[in-house]
Amino acid sequence: MDAVFEAAPSVGPRKHRGTGLTVAPENQERLNMEHFFNAESVAVVGVSSSPTNLGRAIVFNLMEFQYQGVIYLVGPKGGVLAGHRIYRDVLELPEPVDLAAVLVPAQVVPEVLRQCGQRGIRRVIVESAGFRELGEERLSLEQQIQEILDRYQMRMIGPNCIGVIHRKNGLAVPFMPMRAEAPLGRVALVSQSGGVGATMINLCAAENVGFGKFASIGNKFNVNENDLLEYLTSDPETEVIFCYLEGIAQGRRLIEIAARSSKPFVVHKSNWGGAGAVIALSHSASLSSDDKVVEAAFRQCGITRVFEQDDAMNAVKGFLLPPMRGRRLAVISRSGGHAVMAADAAEEFGFELPPFPDELIQMISRRARAGVIRFHNPLDMGDIFDLELYRSLAEQTLTRADIDAVLFIYNYWGLFDTEESRRLIRSLGELMATHGKPVVVCVFSTVGETTVSRRSMTFPIWTDPREALRALALNRDRRDGPPMVFARERPSGIDVPRAKQFVEATGEGLLPADVLAGVLEAYGIPLVPWRMVRGLEALLEASREMGFPVVLKTAETHVVHKTDAGGVVMNLSGVSQLERAYRSLERFGPAVLLQKQVEPGLEWLVGGRQDDQFGPVVVTGLGGIHVEVFRETAIRVAPFDREDARGLLEECRGSALMQGVRGRPPLDQEAMADLVSRVSWILNDFPEIRELDLNPVFIRQNGCEAVDWRAVKKGRQPSTSSEKRP
Amino acid sequence: MDAVFEAAPSVGPRKHRGTGLTVAPENQERLNMEHFFNAESVAVVGVSSSPTNLGRAIVFNLMEFQYQGVIYLVGPKGGVLAGHRIYRDVLELPEPVDLAAVLVPAQVVPEVLRQCGQRGIRRVIVESAGFRELGEERLSLEQQIQEILDRYQMRMIGPNCIGVIHRKNGLAVPFMPMRAEAPLGRVALVSQSGGVGATMINLCAAENVGFGKFASIGNKFNVNENDLLEYLTSDPETEVIFCYLEGIAQGRRLIEIAARSSKPFVVHKSNWGGAGAVIALSHSASLSSDDKVVEAAFRQCGITRVFEQDDAMNAVKGFLLPPMRGRRLAVISRSGGHAVMAADAAEEFGFELPPFPDELIQMISRRARAGVIRFHNPLDMGDIFDLELYRSLAEQTLTRADIDAVLFIYNYWGLFDTEESRRLIRSLGELMATHGKPVVVCVFSTVGETTVSRRSMTFPIWTDPREALRALALNRDRRDGPPMVFARERPSGIDVPRAKQFVEATGEGLLPADVLAGVLEAYGIPLVPWRMVRGLEALLEASREMGFPVVLKTAETHVVHKTDAGGVVMNLSGVSQLERAYRSLERFGPAVLLQKQVEPGLEWLVGGRQDDQFGPVVVTGLGGIHVEVFRETAIRVAPFDREDARGLLEECRGSALMQGVRGRPPLDQEAMADLVSRVSWILNDFPEIRELDLNPVFIRQNGCEAVDWRAVKKGRQPSTSSEKRP
Repeated sequence: MDAVFEAAPSVGPRKHRGTGLTVAPENQERLNMEHFFNAESVAVVGVSSSPTNLGRAIVFNLMEFQYQGVIYLVGPKGGVLAGHRIYRDVLELPEPVDLAAVLVPAQVVPEVLRQCGQRGIRRVIVESAGFRELGEERLSLEQQIQEILDRYQMRMIGPNCIGVIHRKNGLAVPFMPMRAEAPLGRVALVSQSGGVGATMINLCAAENVGFGKFASIGNKFNVNENDLLEYLTSDPETEVIFCYLEGIAQGRRLIEIAARSSKPFVVHKSNWGGAGAVIALSHSASLSSDDKVVEAAFRQCGITRVFEQDDAMNAVKGFLLPPMRGRRLAVISRSGGHAVMAADAAEEFGFELPPFPDELIQMISRRARAGVIRFHNPLDMGDIFDLELYRSLAEQTLTRADIDAVLFIYNYWGLFDTEESRRLIRSLGELMATHGKPVVVCVFSTVGETTVSRRSMTFPIWTDPREALRALALNRDRRDGPPMVFARERPSGIDVPRAKQFVEATGEGLLPADVLAGVLEAYGIPLVPWRMVRGLEALLEASREMGFPVVLKTAETHVVHKTDAGGVVMNLSGVSQLERAYRSLERFGPAVLLQKQVEPGLEWLVGGRQDDQFGPVVVTGLGGIHVEVFRETAIRVAPFDREDARGLLEECRGSALMQGVRGRPPLDQEAMADLVSRVSWILNDFPEIRELDLNPVFIRQNGCEAVDWRAVKKGRQPSTSSEKRP
Repeated sequence: MDAVFEAAPSVGPRKHRGTGLTVAPENQERLNMEHFFNAESVAVVGVSSSPTNLGRAIVFNLMEFQYQGVIYLVGPKGGVLAGHRIYRDVLELPEPVDLAAVLVPAQVVPEVLRQCGQRGIRRVIVESAGFRELGEERLSLEQQIQEILDRYQMRMIGPNCIGVIHRKNGLAVPFMPMRAEAPLGRVALVSQSGGVGATMINLCAAENVGFGKFASIGNKFNVNENDLLEYLTSDPETEVIFCYLEGIAQGRRLIEIAARSSKPFVVHKSNWGGAGAVIALSHSASLSSDDKVVEAAFRQCGITRVFEQDDAMNAVKGFLLPPMRGRRLAVISRSGGHAVMAADAAEEFGFELPPFPDELIQMISRRARAGVIRFHNPLDMGDIFDLELYRSLAEQTLTRADIDAVLFIYNYWGLFDTEESRRLIRSLGELMATHGKPVVVCVFSTVGETTVSRRSMTFPIWTDPREALRALALNRDRRDGPPMVFARERPSGIDVPRAKQFVEATGEGLLPADVLAGVLEAYGIPLVPWRMVRGLEALLEASREMGFPVVLKTAETHVVHKTDAGGVVMNLSGVSQLERAYRSLERFGPAVLLQKQVEPGLEWLVGGRQDDQFGPVVVTGLGGIHVEVFRETAIRVAPFDREDARGLLEECRGSALMQGVRGRPPLDQEAMADLVSRVSWILNDFPEIRELDLNPVFIRQNGCEAVDWRAVKKGRQPSTSSEKRP
């Protein structure tokens, strides 16, 4: 990749409103991780000369990748391997060592770590399996390890992993034999699974995409993905970061790291199955499965999420190109069919195809044969077999100020025009480096020729125009960076202490309607006129003050689904109706909520919950029966301001109804955005409010008001570090 | 592929209700195409010994693919090439020839074809470009060609193509040099674009997927995709058919061929860009862009549509496996991470993962090491490195009656376990052949090892579990075949002659409301009570008969969007209001439509249009403001019966509102399905009704009725063979 990256500016500092984050980069953390990769000596613990010993593969990998440091081997049987004496234990090592790679039975790991600590080895990679992934009975082993890490101030990667590779200094400690095929480059790979990580390295080799650092993190007992990702964002050898995760250790920290990063993050988050199985009391909770929150959180902080390894590699390739700074694309193709596909994909991924200017067309006409060509963009080169013309056309197109990128589609058969074709492709890379604009090169040839020719290129090659444009669109859309991730200031008029009094004065479970109304009012959220009373007499008096028509609802908190249970009576236009309604609700208990029956508006849902990984999240979307039918909602991690709330509303197609469809007047979307932002602050400020639902909120031409509200309180939020394990 | 296909039953006859098609297989057509592939002699016309002559490549390809027939060369300069004398023209050929492959300048093509005709050559492939793709002025060339084809009863493939390959007899006439890398197999490839077709052959080689027949059809001047597809459906050498199309020649014929076929069709239809640009008077038309109709028509007749060449190859691979006859999948994986991905994908694509039975688990336990494994399905083999155990596990799983397919994920590094690994993979293919159930094999290795090992396999290999399960899902979902494609009988109570009187009595343009109402009523479609009158007096008399409240609409057909123009007045409860309404509509003209104001129901849209490719199509979905907001509609090619109409309604998420959400009573979906089926017959019976819109139809607990109707009449439908050209 070097040729491209040295000439072209890197993805560079991004314009944004500020991330809203206050955490400073943890340089200490960065240095902590640095030593895992830049170790000048490594002890491989668990080696024997037996042919079935897995530790041997670690030694072979260090040789295959040409490790530039000193290697020490340790194994209880002693002996010699690959010219190195095998020491019987860590204490025997003749001098201080930077790093230990440990592959011994799980039961022995604590003792090995203790010896490492005693010998001053502060970085260890434990590749052994057999810990909590096998069940709770192995947790005592982990407790012992924790004590040792604490005592000796050690950092540990693993257990249950294949460790790290630093391509530059050759430090490579996976326990399966690998080949150093993928070139050195600017991609960093972090993988929770060793198998998936190794596969990504093979994909890099297949695509000739260079990587610099690799880490397999396994059970993430001590070092987790965030520790490594934070380090990589400030690592000068890294330009693009890929991460495979099955669980997320600390979601909010991940958001913060990604949002602060000037480097693209491509994350393959698997283990999303069973997403429909969330059991929740509120709509908001049932509409925000763990995976939907992951999806929303990633979008919020600018992480590119992928679902397949091929898609991951495609995204990484797109980010290895110089940044595309507009939407204007020129397509030059040697095959008409692929030009048609490129036009389809350009439309699909939002590229513009400006017409080719006259002078270029004249240049081609002069050199074309019988004129078997039509001058569109996409340009089908037809029967022009003039490779120098191709190059010159690409160059002149790339030079133009009205073109932001070129897609160059080139078919050849590797039989008679091989060398010329390779030279042409190589020259496209040079053009890209010179002009600092992306040239997406899509080559169709035999698999053999593609494999060989790719090895001589310093930039990514595609083999499908749609994949190529998908990758380019990711590159392009990153240019502005994510918007503000979290809001820094509460909206005006919020009285936190008052809300706190309400929340703290009540126990766990469904909040009483008046208590929750108090919280909502303290946060400036408009509610329909309401009175909570007990008994008929108080009710009648309240109704006299309020005036008819009214709605009556049971306010007994043991009634979980009050509409389904028949706990709501609407359209009460006088005292006698009200009294009859009260009699029908009395069976639940004496507490009732009296509400003014108001003019209906567009029904919307706003709510949220505390997510184990990402903390407070807000859910919103069309309310009423639309919730069940369309289940179309937008999710965002709290807190956020009114501008982001507006964006969140606009993610729902139903928001078109707010803008006035078919001559209807537009509704007060601003008031609604304000309300949504305030809800985000409630969930942020009160982790003990586990679920919150305002459904429906009526939106009108002027203002909006919540018509029904419910919330569930639980004990204080557990630490977000409790990761769900597959 | 042979091993698998000889042992396993082919995809075989499918259960379905009958396709509703009456066209018999055209055996004559089949034989017509047969001679393009089974020619025993071929004349290559346009050859010279000049190194830049493209015709030479045809000769080299015939040698590379080891053509088993006799080769004759023709070129005006004469001479010798590859040991063959070059005859100066076709008339000079010494004996009769089955097929001519022609690559001469466009202007010379008619003369060459005439000579072919004179010499009795009835099959020609014209590879030359330079016809209508360059503009209208080349059409006279095509006229000459048409006359010659007619006079001599010749069939022609092309022009502007790369011709055919018959892998078995080595007939290979593309004009770019190719390698005979892809093995002989049961896939047939038809491509409108030569470049895309050649790329598919390269993909076959890369994936070691065998093909039997290939045809590039270019401009489709005489032979089109349907001619070839119909032939291939009865070709015993073909099991799976791939087709790349930029335009569709005769959509209804394509539907009929695909629906009758026992072989899977995978179609890559590109050139769908600009799909939003349909200009139409009615909602139904604007909601049914050409591409949406393609999508619907393909689904209707069981064509698998793909959008990328990789997806095409993936689908083809899936169909090369034995048919999966249920949803129950066992996943066996050597890598935990890939097992997690497989579980995600199994959920995504609707597979069930039954638990592994005790006896299998015990077998593994006996042979596993320290027990570093958990016995789920997906089964992560953890640290068990026992290849014979893997095979035996796959076999015992496949034998079980409660398992319909196995996904086997195998990682190896090609460094020390290469031969054993290849043997294991090969044995999985044998198991598949023996048991007639799919084994989807997903291999992760270095690109070099994957390429080499694949060549020794007789079945497809995947490199990503999600792609593998996507392909398996296509295979599985095909097992029941498409439902009935077209209805054969009209619903009861339709009076076609009466409707015909109405339609024929009126001119082009917007149909008068009473005329269209007459058609709708003749087809048994319930309408709200209506009266069309001219002038106030007639109106008042009509209102006395109808009774209030009423709605008044202008019935002047020059008012195209009557609601937007203020041509509709609702909620008229008495004579004075009605009179005032009439005065406000008088400016449009005296014709008005008086309608009973009825109880509202769920608003639905039903309509359709005549599609250039597929003929009559019906569009339906939620009506009213939902049309603009959600634009969620379902499309089906007409005519179809009530059962299919019900399925069409259920494609819309909004149909949940018919089933009674949140305690509301269910609505009369049967009446609605009946109405939709009747609409499909109107569009089928009257091609001159170009667009039809019933919007809204009110659906109630009992019955439904159309509240507004409009239709546009044009001259008789043009022939559907007029293909739109890119």
